[in-house]
Amino acid sequence: MKDFKYYTPTEVVFGEQSEEQVAQLVKKYGGTKVLVHYGGKSAERSGLLDKICGLLKEGDIDYVKLGGVVPNPRLSKAQEGIELCRWEGVDFILAVGGGSVIDSAKCIAYGVPYLGDVWDFYLGKASATEMLPVACVLTIPAAGSEMSEASVITNEEGDVKLGYSNDLSRPKFAIMNPRRTFTLPPYQTAAGVTDMMMHTMERYFTKDDDMDLTTDIAEAILRRMKTAVYDVMKDPENYRQRAQIMWGGSVAHNGLTGCGVSDDWATHQLEHELSGMFDVTHGAGLAAIWPSWARYVMHENLNRFVRFAVNVMDVPNDFTDPETTALKGIEAMERFYHDIGMPVNIKELIGRDITDEEIKEMTRKCSRDYTATCGQFKILKADDMEAIYKMARG
Amino acid sequence: MKDFKYYTPTEVVFGEQSEEQVAQLVKKYGGTKVLVHYGGKSAERSGLLDKICGLLKEGDIDYVKLGGVVPNPRLSKAQEGIELCRWEGVDFILAVGGGSVIDSAKCIAYGVPYLGDVWDFYLGKASATEMLPVACVLTIPAAGSEMSEASVITNEEGDVKLGYSNDLSRPKFAIMNPRRTFTLPPYQTAAGVTDMMMHTMERYFTKDDDMDLTTDIAEAILRRMKTAVYDVMKDPENYRQRAQIMWGGSVAHNGLTGCGVSDDWATHQLEHELSGMFDVTHGAGLAAIWPSWARYVMHENLNRFVRFAVNVMDVPNDFTDPETTALKGIEAMERFYHDIGMPVNIKELIGRDITDEEIKEMTRKCSRDYTATCGQFKILKADDMEAIYKMARG
Repeated sequence: MKDFKYYTPTEVVFGEQSEEQVAQLVKKYGGTKVLVHYGGKSAERSGLLDKICGLLKEGDIDYVKLGGVVPNPRLSKAQEGIELCRWEGVDFILAVGGGSVIDSAKCIAYGVPYLGDVWDFYLGKASATEMLPVACVLTIPAAGSEMSEASVITNEEGDVKLGYSNDLSRPKFAIMNPRRTFTLPPYQTAAGVTDMMMHTMERYFTKDDDMDLTTDIAEAILRRMKTAVYDVMKDPENYRQRAQIMWGGSVAHNGLTGCGVSDDWATHQLEHELSGMFDVTHGAGLAAIWPSWARYVMHENLNRFVRFAVNVMDVPNDFTDPETTALKGIEAMERFYHDIGMPVNIKELIGRDITDEEIKEMTRKCSRDYTATCGQFKILKADDMEAIYKMARG
Repeated sequence: MKDFKYYTPTEVVFGEQSEEQVAQLVKKYGGTKVLVHYGGKSAERSGLLDKICGLLKEGDIDYVKLGGVVPNPRLSKAQEGIELCRWEGVDFILAVGGGSVIDSAKCIAYGVPYLGDVWDFYLGKASATEMLPVACVLTIPAAGSEMSEASVITNEEGDVKLGYSNDLSRPKFAIMNPRRTFTLPPYQTAAGVTDMMMHTMERYFTKDDDMDLTTDIAEAILRRMKTAVYDVMKDPENYRQRAQIMWGGSVAHNGLTGCGVSDDWATHQLEHELSGMFDVTHGAGLAAIWPSWARYVMHENLNRFVRFAVNVMDVPNDFTDPETTALKGIEAMERFYHDIGMPVNIKELIGRDITDEEIKEMTRKCSRDYTATCGQFKILKADDMEAIYKMARG
């Protein structure tokens, strides 16, 4: 069995009254001057931003605001934040939003005390030994960044999207009020659930069959997310089901589903190039790639795909024919993606046929000019990546 | 849905190589002079104590040792530890052992910087605002103290056993090597699994039916513990199954299984008096009480007991007769307890009939002289407690 570390220090405050605690929590974790970091108009329109700022003010906590974070958050915005924090003497960063805003906040927090260029961390040229404390008020359950050690930033110069992981960046606290997710549109809700399920599946599909409890918990999360999203599609203001999804997004990616198993991440890396080239929603891109990845790699550990079919997708187990059972599981997942409005191939994702040249270009990028592999379940070389992209063209 | 907090800052380092990191972890969390706290001879005999001390020495970390912690750890031993730590200038406490040793370590850590009597915290007369950092090398999976905020101490004067909970006391790190549990005798293994399953069940049996994901995860843990303990009974050196149990004990009690639900703890409180009066093993005492508690309270939320029967105990659901299904689940749990050598009533626990006087005395103590209730699923008054003890007499 694989040795593992599990480390999730984030204090989660979950529920309808959770926001009321924001000032008290900022103080508890040492914040005296806060950068309130957010995205676009929705945090303003919903009144959440005003509420949070009002609570900080009532708590006698000084703050400055910086909005304008976009999906696939940009390095330039983070650099703007770093300058602002230094100028204003900010000592605590509070992200109000989803994964993009939290990732941008983490990037700023790395940058403030660092003398060099914050992009160094993402390039692997430096490792952060200190950073400002980050916390969040989550509004979009999907990325899991509210408890994770990861952040992904896009450098507009060269359009390079890179991630950096460091335990220091796990948020000090995460306020989660499911009511704030009632207004998430169906497509974004479905893409979010697809993303969080994939965070679990990237760890679930492993050759390490001996950490049963992790697998059991992963299956419980996957089944529940599947059930909850159907109900939310019918009734966006279903608090109970919104709560399952919101909490599911955190436990899917805080490390719990990876304890004692090797994780894969090939689907994420293959999708990376798709969203880079076509600016599609990350979750939708994952749905477009996964069925082809699954069919391509399933023989590496067929047993896992049989388990997935039976325990997650409710496919009756044909004990005499594991391959058919496994394939029915993948087909059931495709039906699920369609049910919630997600694509199952690239054509459905981008609305046209992808060209051979585009596939070649994505393969080149994903393999870093044919030098790198991706994945663990099956280690994919450039040829494998191209084959999967071709299978996924639709 | 109930709002909740989830906070588990402990860095878990799990696996066969985990002990090697002890010196590095102590340094990471600021320890320069360590109290190595342990129980009886087993830590010495197994070589674990020497190994840990050797690693600290290699890492140039100064330490003193204090052994002799007994099950149901005593206040006097903790007070001895407090004096020793002050005298030696200890700034970090490393527990090497199971729940009793960790709880004793927490008590010492509260006491060192406190000017008054550390028992004040357990009496509810004071609340700790600082304490020495505590960490552990776990050898007995059961109590869950390695990630929890709780500690239970027995004051020999008056034989009073009290608990104190404070997030400050969550261990900084927990080293868990399943191999160290190979030598745990069957009875202790079974009692440990019973305890950790009960930590989950105390939260699972709730009237809050709306936090589905928590319930799903609880069921996954319960099912896996049930399976793993059978295998370990047959083969005590089964690393894979020992690992499920070791990790299961932590996730059962670190808060995950309580997110968004009201917890009960009546079985624990009723057992408290049993182990107080007869000095029995805590886990065995829980097994002796639970079936009677379950039958007495099941109509408070029959649905939960049906779920438990079907999803945990593999009882076929008789949809026309939920009561029978629920009862069959309780009977299946009794068979499970017997299978692993646990009692299902007080007679089996103590080896003789319990007297009416003894039941009256336990009832008096559990109800704090007929003034207090226990439990949430059904709030138990003194009469209810007495009725459950009588049902459980066997």
